[in-house]
Amino acid sequence: MALFDKIAIIGLGLIGSSIARGIKDKKLADVLSGYDINPDYQNTIKELCLVDDLCTKIGDAVKDADLIILATPVGTYSEIGKEIKSYLKEGAILSDVGSVKAAVFEMLGPSTPENVHLIPAHPVAGTEQSGPESGFSSLFQDRWAIITPLDDADQNAVDKLSKFWQGLGSNVEIMNATHHDKVLAITSHVPHLIAYNIVGTARDLEEVTKSEVIKFSAGGFRDFTRIAASNPTMWRDVFLNNKEAVLEMLGRFSEDLTALQRAIRWGDGDTLYDMFVKTRRIRRQIIDAGQDEDVADFGRKHDK
Amino acid sequence: MALFDKIAIIGLGLIGSSIARGIKDKKLADVLSGYDINPDYQNTIKELCLVDDLCTKIGDAVKDADLIILATPVGTYSEIGKEIKSYLKEGAILSDVGSVKAAVFEMLGPSTPENVHLIPAHPVAGTEQSGPESGFSSLFQDRWAIITPLDDADQNAVDKLSKFWQGLGSNVEIMNATHHDKVLAITSHVPHLIAYNIVGTARDLEEVTKSEVIKFSAGGFRDFTRIAASNPTMWRDVFLNNKEAVLEMLGRFSEDLTALQRAIRWGDGDTLYDMFVKTRRIRRQIIDAGQDEDVADFGRKHDK
Repeated sequence: MALFDKIAIIGLGLIGSSIARGIKDKKLADVLSGYDINPDYQNTIKELCLVDDLCTKIGDAVKDADLIILATPVGTYSEIGKEIKSYLKEGAILSDVGSVKAAVFEMLGPSTPENVHLIPAHPVAGTEQSGPESGFSSLFQDRWAIITPLDDADQNAVDKLSKFWQGLGSNVEIMNATHHDKVLAITSHVPHLIAYNIVGTARDLEEVTKSEVIKFSAGGFRDFTRIAASNPTMWRDVFLNNKEAVLEMLGRFSEDLTALQRAIRWGDGDTLYDMFVKTRRIRRQIIDAGQDEDVADFGRKHDK
Repeated sequence: MALFDKIAIIGLGLIGSSIARGIKDKKLADVLSGYDINPDYQNTIKELCLVDDLCTKIGDAVKDADLIILATPVGTYSEIGKEIKSYLKEGAILSDVGSVKAAVFEMLGPSTPENVHLIPAHPVAGTEQSGPESGFSSLFQDRWAIITPLDDADQNAVDKLSKFWQGLGSNVEIMNATHHDKVLAITSHVPHLIAYNIVGTARDLEEVTKSEVIKFSAGGFRDFTRIAASNPTMWRDVFLNNKEAVLEMLGRFSEDLTALQRAIRWGDGDTLYDMFVKTRRIRRQIIDAGQDEDVADFGRKHDK
């Protein structure tokens, strides 16, 4: 018996289509329905047979579903919430995969019926690519899925959602939504912002040509361009919906950067060296925790 | 006949030992001598047979060499220059692999005899690892080696050094040292500084624990920790010796970041979206130029 009778996925881009593949692989639902507003995506979803039932109306997709997962940019949630509310089954779990969590309650809370369990979630996994063709079922393997229920959430529903993510290969952490948003501001949102920013700064220089930036990118810059190639709509919505935590972490980042800038200006080598030694240990701990591979240069192939 | 009768490498860490391996593989010298001040490195160099002649005196290593390559942190150059000057062969090429180039003339110029060709170089390649055991001969394959001769440099010597780097698999670009320092400030130095900085900021937070930073690093942060795991001594010396260009580029970076910060504060989604769309194209161009691999997530393995 599958974990759920019917699961509905709204939005089948990188994350949604990876979930769909995982559900099929691990047989987590008897029926998997899907909905996507993008006509190009619809064709790819059909060609790749990613869901059992690709619906043309969002109401048909969520009808009778025991678990509904929104995998669209966070900015779409309010509208989707209103569109689906009258189709939601009693006792269903309404969840999502967005990178911000407190805002989910603001956007989906008002439209969610009382007999439906709104339990946001966030799988901390992804690549810089987009679209249903980019997904793969092992995307969540050994990564963390953070579930952010309200204090009075139904424990059975939370347990079932936890089992679902464990079924996809993830470790599960239960966390308060506001704390989630602070943690992710520093581990994901601000890193993305500064990656986008350095790529923008490099593009706009007068003295260094774009061709030079590209040719000599292997000195470090190219790593940032990968992150800065992530989905623009998704990231716009992240920053608009985690304003407070992002601005706080960004303030600290800028303060620290100013201190380094000052050390460079005044030739204070000891301050620079002490800083550069301490950061090396964090890399080691991430590898030891299984959150990155223990290979040089991300395992880039140097032999052809 | 090998390109050089004798090559001497001073410093056999990641870069120096990779050059040594490449020289052996491609038979670019009849004799390869080496010198390293670190006793641990000396043992590894011997065990791995990285050079024909590992000298205990730096003068013995450079004596009779037709090409001498400094592969030590830039801050050591002045002292090494004084130590080796009386051993340098007439007509020899004195070069290096440092990430800053104008400073090389300041540090090695005064001690270099008139009949020796001082021609700095910089292979734009590397990994976050250090030490002779981390090197590999294909590190420079398809990467760019930038050679920064003075205007009145001996053309034969420049040509020979170009052939050497091409022999190691690199593309060669001839560039003015000051321009090099500006290009690398944006493509390498500032990216490293902000990577070190975000890792430092994350480490020092009170509200988010270090364990959380490590667990949830797959959201983007882990990419930065790779760069921030680079050799601290080398990077301290880079910042101390490319002060002007780094401060200029850093000023632009901060200015641009402030604009993004303001867009977040005021909820200006259009500014954010426009910015995030433009940066995506640069990634594509880097891949098309052969400077990174065309695989998602740097080709990290997601299946076990």
